[in-house]
Amino acid sequence: ESANGFQFKKDSLTQKLQDTESRNQALEARLSELELRLESQQQEREAFRASLRSLLELLDGKIFELTELRDTLGKLLESS
Amino acid sequence: ESANGFQFKKDSLTQKLQDTESRNQALEARLSELELRLESQQQEREAFRASLRSLLELLDGKIFELTELRDTLGKLLESS
Amino acid sequence: ESANGFQFKKDSLTQKLQDTESRNQALEARLSELELRLESQQQEREAFRASLRSLLELLDGKIFELTELRDTLGKLLESS
Amino acid sequence: ESANGFQFKKDSLTQKLQDTESRNQALEARLSELELRLESQQQEREAFRASLRSLLELLDGKIFELTELRDTLGKLLESS
Repeated sequence: ESANGFQFKKDSLTQKLQDTESRNQALEARLSELELRLESQQQEREAFRASLRSLLELLDGKIFELTELRDTLGKLLESS
Repeated sequence: ESANGFQFKKDSLTQKLQDTESRNQALEARLSELELRLESQQQEREAFRASLRSLLELLDGKIFELTELRDTLGKLLESS
Repeated sequence: ESANGFQFKKDSLTQKLQDTESRNQALEARLSELELRLESQQQEREAFRASLRSLLELLDGKIFELTELRDTLGKLLESS
Repeated sequence: ESANGFQFKKDSLTQKLQDTESRNQALEARLSELELRLESQQQEREAFRASLRSLLELLDGKIFELTELRDTLGKLLESS
């Protein structure tokens, strides 16, 4: 092979390598971004569920209190 | 006793008897009125209690439905 | 009229008067009893209504708290 | 430069390029996976919110019905 031929192939390979490496960096940046987004969604989701669990406990309390009120009304009706 | 004395006592007794009988009629009228009032209050009271018992059953239904809603929320939170 | 005739009528009137007076006493006793019963039912009724009014206020409170819980859930759903 | 020198550089570049391309493929596979996961989480989240919105409407209904029950009790207390 001629020296020119070698040089051309070397340049072509170097160019391809640079393109691939720069594509790599773009992919890694996109991956980091997605991983952060997943993590942040996970945290949001946990916070949301924690709020819902609090609401569920509040609802339990309200149902308990309505049941007490119902029993008071029931006893009032039976007693007289 | 003289005939006049007898006549006077008889008139006096007759008068007293009439007064007492007329007092009797007034008392019996008042009694009838009170008995009717008691009976009518009893009926009102029964109707009122029947309405309250209906409300109690409605309240039972609402508490049951709230408990179902609470369970649905609970399962939703556990499942995901 | 003979003295015997007068005496008989007097005794008969006296007897009737005693019967009517004793009937009067029975009626007055019955009236007092009914009046007490009406008054006591009135007091019971007032106490019962007062208890129901307390229950109504408790129910108002529970409905208000359920509405707050509902609004919290609504905001949670909108915010995220 | 000698022919051996050229050959060595070309091999080295070719190797590096292959490594980078294979890293690229791994990154792209990981990205696809994350994108699917994000999309699936998004769908889960939408389904979850839709269920919560249904529950919110049910809760609205229950609160409305409790308020009606409360008004019925209120009218019952006023009317008698």
